[in-house]
Amino acid sequence: MGKQQAILRESMERLDLTRTAFADRLGVSRRALDTWLLPEDSNGHRAMPDVVARLITSLAGPDPASDGASDLRGRLSAASGRPQLLSVDVFDRELAEDFMRVAESMEPIARRHKVSRVLEGAVLGNLFFEPSTRTRVSFGAAFCRLGGSVCDTTGFTFSSMAKGESIADTSRVISGYVDAIVVRHPEQGSVAQFAAATHLPVINGGDGIGEHPTQALLDLYTIRREFARLGKTIDGSSVAVVGDLKHGRTVHSLIKLLSLYKNLRITLIAPKSLEMPRDLVEAARARGHRIREDSSLDALKQPDILYATRIQKERMSGEGVEAYPENFRVDRALVKARCSGDTVILHPLPRDSTPGANDLSSDLDRDPRLAIFRQTDAGIPVRMALFAILLGVDHLVAGSLRDAPWTSPPRLGPADAAFHRLK
Amino acid sequence: MGKQQAILRESMERLDLTRTAFADRLGVSRRALDTWLLPEDSNGHRAMPDVVARLITSLAGPDPASDGASDLRGRLSAASGRPQLLSVDVFDRELAEDFMRVAESMEPIARRHKVSRVLEGAVLGNLFFEPSTRTRVSFGAAFCRLGGSVCDTTGFTFSSMAKGESIADTSRVISGYVDAIVVRHPEQGSVAQFAAATHLPVINGGDGIGEHPTQALLDLYTIRREFARLGKTIDGSSVAVVGDLKHGRTVHSLIKLLSLYKNLRITLIAPKSLEMPRDLVEAARARGHRIREDSSLDALKQPDILYATRIQKERMSGEGVEAYPENFRVDRALVKARCSGDTVILHPLPRDSTPGANDLSSDLDRDPRLAIFRQTDAGIPVRMALFAILLGVDHLVAGSLRDAPWTSPPRLGPADAAFHRLK
Amino acid sequence: MGKQQAILRESMERLDLTRTAFADRLGVSRRALDTWLLPEDSNGHRAMPDVVARLITSLAGPDPASDGASDLRGRLSAASGRPQLLSVDVFDRELAEDFMRVAESMEPIARRHKVSRVLEGAVLGNLFFEPSTRTRVSFGAAFCRLGGSVCDTTGFTFSSMAKGESIADTSRVISGYVDAIVVRHPEQGSVAQFAAATHLPVINGGDGIGEHPTQALLDLYTIRREFARLGKTIDGSSVAVVGDLKHGRTVHSLIKLLSLYKNLRITLIAPKSLEMPRDLVEAARARGHRIREDSSLDALKQPDILYATRIQKERMSGEGVEAYPENFRVDRALVKARCSGDTVILHPLPRDSTPGANDLSSDLDRDPRLAIFRQTDAGIPVRMALFAILLGVDHLVAGSLRDAPWTSPPRLGPADAAFHRLK
Repeated sequence: MGKQQAILRESMERLDLTRTAFADRLGVSRRALDTWLLPEDSNGHRAMPDVVARLITSLAGPDPASDGASDLRGRLSAASGRPQLLSVDVFDRELAEDFMRVAESMEPIARRHKVSRVLEGAVLGNLFFEPSTRTRVSFGAAFCRLGGSVCDTTGFTFSSMAKGESIADTSRVISGYVDAIVVRHPEQGSVAQFAAATHLPVINGGDGIGEHPTQALLDLYTIRREFARLGKTIDGSSVAVVGDLKHGRTVHSLIKLLSLYKNLRITLIAPKSLEMPRDLVEAARARGHRIREDSSLDALKQPDILYATRIQKERMSGEGVEAYPENFRVDRALVKARCSGDTVILHPLPRDSTPGANDLSSDLDRDPRLAIFRQTDAGIPVRMALFAILLGVDHLVAGSLRDAPWTSPPRLGPADAAFHRLK
Repeated sequence: MGKQQAILRESMERLDLTRTAFADRLGVSRRALDTWLLPEDSNGHRAMPDVVARLITSLAGPDPASDGASDLRGRLSAASGRPQLLSVDVFDRELAEDFMRVAESMEPIARRHKVSRVLEGAVLGNLFFEPSTRTRVSFGAAFCRLGGSVCDTTGFTFSSMAKGESIADTSRVISGYVDAIVVRHPEQGSVAQFAAATHLPVINGGDGIGEHPTQALLDLYTIRREFARLGKTIDGSSVAVVGDLKHGRTVHSLIKLLSLYKNLRITLIAPKSLEMPRDLVEAARARGHRIREDSSLDALKQPDILYATRIQKERMSGEGVEAYPENFRVDRALVKARCSGDTVILHPLPRDSTPGANDLSSDLDRDPRLAIFRQTDAGIPVRMALFAILLGVDHLVAGSLRDAPWTSPPRLGPADAAFHRLK
Repeated sequence: MGKQQAILRESMERLDLTRTAFADRLGVSRRALDTWLLPEDSNGHRAMPDVVARLITSLAGPDPASDGASDLRGRLSAASGRPQLLSVDVFDRELAEDFMRVAESMEPIARRHKVSRVLEGAVLGNLFFEPSTRTRVSFGAAFCRLGGSVCDTTGFTFSSMAKGESIADTSRVISGYVDAIVVRHPEQGSVAQFAAATHLPVINGGDGIGEHPTQALLDLYTIRREFARLGKTIDGSSVAVVGDLKHGRTVHSLIKLLSLYKNLRITLIAPKSLEMPRDLVEAARARGHRIREDSSLDALKQPDILYATRIQKERMSGEGVEAYPENFRVDRALVKARCSGDTVILHPLPRDSTPGANDLSSDLDRDPRLAIFRQTDAGIPVRMALFAILLGVDHLVAGSLRDAPWTSPPRLGPADAAFHRLK
């Protein structure tokens, strides 16, 4: 939503007033207020007079944004009127780019050169109703790196839910204890139910086959950084996505985010029966991207990005099984045959390293084009940025930095040497 | 215990002396020391001379209390001579009131306006041998909000206990690692065993059908605040307690705490076979309260407090089942028929929101009289107060406050709007 | 390794250069560099010229050691070239003694008199793929007491490992989130695999029947402190080790560490079939210690140290069962009959307190010679020292101390009184 909308909604929220009561308080007609609240590109939209903006400030207290805070919190809150990230659908290109810039400003902390304590005293409820250690630790560490504390819950059962407690009750109770909440839940839509019952910042950490928006954001963040290093832009680039494109929420969200850019050539390669859902393909086409679909890795033609995902054999049913390709593995031979010298290879991880798995092979581990660990590392600055924005402290981070006194290795993994030389 | 007792006991503890050795050190007779150690209201009690108090200070180092620390730590320690809260039985009215005032002083932190780091460097062992996510997170978040760190254990098995380790060994080992301990355990009495093996602060987080003292304290805290808002006092008020009064340790402890006040009219409504235990009823009567018992919700007559608890059908045995009332649900219709405009409705949560459950109905969720989330929110200031007192820093909190830099919502839940207007 | 080796390896690491490229950069021959990198006591070792050392400093930036940092980090890193502790084999006597001095400097924090925040902003990944609450809490609390934050994982399954992820991938992914890692894993060698995939500090928290080096270090730390109190030295002392000496990784590592000292008389008492492995016995003999092996507690002769471990009946197979001694319990009667007035009694805990267990009896709990809780308490300063060294902040701790504002008990357990009087 536009900035005007964001200010009005937040002020009503802060003053705890309905639209009618708010119009009364401002001394304007309800109809005028309604026009100011319309989307900027809609027909009836009107800009609100400056004097009203000033009155709002004096009534509702200074807009946090006016202290130098960015307006990203308001823009991220557009979908629900609350500082919550449930889906990548909230992003337009400008918001995505602005968000990425905040994430980049977190790099000195993420790389352990600097320490910030801006969230000292704040508590994160890191609620994983489905186990996912890496995602949980990534969110937790990101919050800690801003100075906050973390309360974790793990595992499938939440004792009070087992006693018949509603998701709404659980959400509201936990909201009394913490300052921000990450929720992962095996059922699609349950995170949205959770978020609807609280005004605290809520981040969807994955809800079944639904969304996992921070994964898509860190994918995009990685692509931007790799392209910056290579002197490329996302506009006009070619992206190949390989694997099970039907069940992977990760690739669904990524396609949506990439579609915000221009003139992409997207190659979708999946075994039959595991294709990308029609609606997502059509939506990307509608935005002007060239989409090609295939079921063979032979369709790969030196893409700028090769994004691989795992294929679980048990997911290939009926007809699919017969059509199962001999080899759906992304390995050194394939990369040599079908990638260029600067193709960037990505994967959401974990990858299946058991022999014969149709997944990204470890024989590529020392290939500098393999960016999978730069990609997981990106989870920290991206999640830090999200917490900082949703809690309204993104503008305070830079001023809060001090040097980290402990010793960090110049590269994290033995195979990272090559990566560092790239930069 | 009185302040004199507390000082003497703490000094013996600090000097690590027996009574006889302590009397020797002071140059007084053992018999004189014994009279000073008697309860203030007992027959043989004598006040100790000022000069002895001064000698004690010079021997044992300054009493922490003399630095401006409150004497609440000593008074809470009266039961066991240690800074531990195992049961609400330690409270008299004055101690309960003094405790509530400390809890109220935590509100600016609990409401996220202020940050304190007074316990920075301290570590809480948050030991849940029985899962209870909400209680665990509430204790953990309260400790974090004072600046401390939390080590959690969750789940039923404690690996070394499975190898035959005694509770006493477990307690003493953990005591070497942390600064305060919360224990929840499925067996009644096990928390007391745990506490007997350590001199660290221990809080009973619930031991089976035994006690859950912090729940009772937050219930009382909520009642006090709601009554303050409504201009009522606990003395002389009417309280109705509804549901399974036999198994609910929560309502048992609450009755004990309420009994410290004067002239209450208490209505206990439970299905037959789930009545409040006789001894608790008689103890409350003995303190001069009027108790009425009934098995039908028709007995409700515009109480000041309506405290509802869940009824689990499986707990109603034999005769009880036939006597099972058609409807034992606290819902909008009941409240309309039998409550006044300022009846405060409480529930210890979780409530069962599955259809047909004999529990507090969610059709009351937007009713401003429903105080159940104000009640769970109260867990933070109450548990903060307890930690601060038991660790001897309650007098340091006020001086340690600074503004919280992050943005908090003006109300936590969508239905809280009504609550805020109440104030 | 020697200091010269450590400096060279660390500089190559920091500059991210191979040996050949590093020699090039220094303008020396690869052969010269190789001789400088040989162990100090080897034939071809040469000292590197001072001017080269100065050049290295100007190329690689100041050696952290030159800021006043100790060289312990480099010496601990000798085994793998990385700041990791996987086995006690890395210790020679001098390193062990130097390490113990750092651990002693942590006592004011471990005893809760002082607070340090030197690791504020750092995050520990505390990965327990096998449950061990006490060890996990001990590592976590030690990291917190240096000011850091902790992300725990517990339980046997790591969800992404279950999906076929390699240990190397897991290690590298987690390395992107945290600053140091503790790993406990049920399979021997898996911690080394984990450590091989990261340059972050890694501590082996126990890998099946493999190693548990911090337990051996805290055992040695306790022995040193008890002997200091008694005016004894480890050199020339007598040590009896009793119990299941075959399966106990603890006693294996302890024998290795004790063997670094001189002229010990070591008595190994185990039921037949549970004897100490041959190679460990022979290695200790080869270092000049007198080893006596027996299967009866009658062989105990007033040792300076009596180190007891648990015997699990199910581990005694075949022939062993018939040879099972009537009584293999270390209790008051045995200690009275076979120990001196200053024999120090140790046990790695947990001990089996169920009736009839062949373990250390609780009838010794108030005996001041029983040092088992002083021993578990030692886990905190030992693990703090390890974190401080591996993260390169051991020289910063002393300057970072401030008083702890909260109240700590003068003794942790009721039976500790006797212990305190010892000092």
